[in-house]
Amino acid sequence: MSDPQTTSVPGRIMAAEMAEQPAVLQRILDEGAPKIREIASQIAARNPRFVLLTARGTSDNAALYAKYLIEVLLGKPAGLTSMSTTTAYGAKPDLTDVLVITVSQSGGSPDLVASTKAAREAGAITLAVTNNADSPLAEVSEFHIDVLAGPEKALPATKTYTAELLALYLLIEGLRGSDGAAAKVLPELAAQILARQSEVKALAERYRFAQRLVITSRGYGYPTAREAALKLMETTYIPASPFSGADLLHGPLAMVDNVSPVIAIVPDGKGGEALQPVLDRLRGRGADLVVVGQRDQVEAASAGFALPAGVPEEVQPILEILPLQLLAYEVTIARGQDPDAPRALAKVTETH
Amino acid sequence: MSDPQTTSVPGRIMAAEMAEQPAVLQRILDEGAPKIREIASQIAARNPRFVLLTARGTSDNAALYAKYLIEVLLGKPAGLTSMSTTTAYGAKPDLTDVLVITVSQSGGSPDLVASTKAAREAGAITLAVTNNADSPLAEVSEFHIDVLAGPEKALPATKTYTAELLALYLLIEGLRGSDGAAAKVLPELAAQILARQSEVKALAERYRFAQRLVITSRGYGYPTAREAALKLMETTYIPASPFSGADLLHGPLAMVDNVSPVIAIVPDGKGGEALQPVLDRLRGRGADLVVVGQRDQVEAASAGFALPAGVPEEVQPILEILPLQLLAYEVTIARGQDPDAPRALAKVTETH
Repeated sequence: MSDPQTTSVPGRIMAAEMAEQPAVLQRILDEGAPKIREIASQIAARNPRFVLLTARGTSDNAALYAKYLIEVLLGKPAGLTSMSTTTAYGAKPDLTDVLVITVSQSGGSPDLVASTKAAREAGAITLAVTNNADSPLAEVSEFHIDVLAGPEKALPATKTYTAELLALYLLIEGLRGSDGAAAKVLPELAAQILARQSEVKALAERYRFAQRLVITSRGYGYPTAREAALKLMETTYIPASPFSGADLLHGPLAMVDNVSPVIAIVPDGKGGEALQPVLDRLRGRGADLVVVGQRDQVEAASAGFALPAGVPEEVQPILEILPLQLLAYEVTIARGQDPDAPRALAKVTETH
Repeated sequence: MSDPQTTSVPGRIMAAEMAEQPAVLQRILDEGAPKIREIASQIAARNPRFVLLTARGTSDNAALYAKYLIEVLLGKPAGLTSMSTTTAYGAKPDLTDVLVITVSQSGGSPDLVASTKAAREAGAITLAVTNNADSPLAEVSEFHIDVLAGPEKALPATKTYTAELLALYLLIEGLRGSDGAAAKVLPELAAQILARQSEVKALAERYRFAQRLVITSRGYGYPTAREAALKLMETTYIPASPFSGADLLHGPLAMVDNVSPVIAIVPDGKGGEALQPVLDRLRGRGADLVVVGQRDQVEAASAGFALPAGVPEEVQPILEILPLQLLAYEVTIARGQDPDAPRALAKVTETH
């Protein structure tokens, strides 16, 4: 009588959802992009001066990616919302000329809905980016983008994360009147990466008995470091601390030694260049350093996963996270746990 | 021939600097406040629409505190800068009508200086908050507030953190034409808390062999959770993961069980109220829960440290961090390490 979707092979649902990602990315490019461009054009006509991003958990990491795109590609100042200032303290900032983007897989978390409603009342242009067009969040927002990922049933979010990243990339390209052509290669490259699961399974052996992890990157790769840490924590329960490479040098480097392995996401571009001094310091301390990045960076590390060359840096995060999702899955399986059902979690989190 | 300041009793310098905090807070109120009010009045006359905060490490936690004050007390939207967008990617956002506040103990980190210089060129009103009036950062900024903490020699920042918090509080009160009278009680209350080191020493026994820590809070207490985690990581090397209570429910709660102790900072006010459902969930999971907060909250937990009653919530962070600084110190001593000299760290961090 039990639900076959939740009682069969451990991790079956998460594995299936990870595998859908190339198709989801293709669907966004084919079916979602025209609507996203239309919304971007309407918002651009209102000429927002400042962008605030509101999200929690995995979607907060997607929002952080969007913050980099907004600052670098759009040249507008941006910030992440501290939601409790509105929901607990009743702050009423003047949000005229402010674009508030709320990112949520379910569109159902009450604090996100309340915060977005308050932002709209305070004069903001509000845009919801969700995987549920019928959600309360979509309802209270002036604009809504559906990330078209299909129902997500595993508790660790995977396909909705990459879908949110791509939708946000197309949105921000649209805001500057560009078509986001750099994204066209992503479905095919994502499929190639996901086909290399056996490489990740070998890497996972390394962390089977790990007590802790440090995950670092810089620039566009930093949201990937945060999302990888969250994914590993919620599936494997290993404490994984994400740091921007610069912040790592301001204190937490003391924590890194030969029993605290480091995973570095090394973007192919300026973020990766800015990370090099941090990688040098880590190698100098004898850290066990696993790199997700270009082949030469992997070869200079203890081990790693090589990413395809020639992809523009601003869309690399949509690929970088894939081997790290697989890693969270494989380490969890190796530790005898079920990635589909982390203890203590509910899919729609009722925070207020 | 060696320097007696660095070779005598472990932790002597950090202990001395923590003990100076009541005097530093009094100095800011007596000598610093008039200058801060004058700068606040000049900035208020320019009527900034948005505030961006730029900082790293401990100062980034002070900046996050300021972000809450700006949103709640000033009603202006605010964000934390992603510095690499400027220093690595050359982003040139239009910062007209934007106040950029850069917070740095040393005022010497090259990326902070470069980012602030770029912000000023992009039209921002720039304000440096540092402990070094002769620093390059003070030099490139239009306005400068000296936090008057005196030289800080221990690698873990303590007195400069509370000094930054108080200076930022007085600044933001000044921006809305208020005198920040709520701060007057802080020096005396800080002295009372610091006199209770033996209580903290007893709590420290609990973490002597800890492999990991989760630290949580909400609202005004969240910057304290982040700073406590950073302080514990850089001195004890225990991985300490800070989460807002709401984010903890979105995934990382899976990590918490009877081997992953939790420290909760429970503000006396709306932040503490918003945290109650999280505390209930943690108690329901049988978590070892240590509370820093009001006596009734401590009594409902496994153990804790009671804070003085009747302090306005917006200045509580200046007191909340004190027992947690002492805790980092005592756990480090208990583990046979030297809090003054964490491995691998330099006082002025040269990130670019």
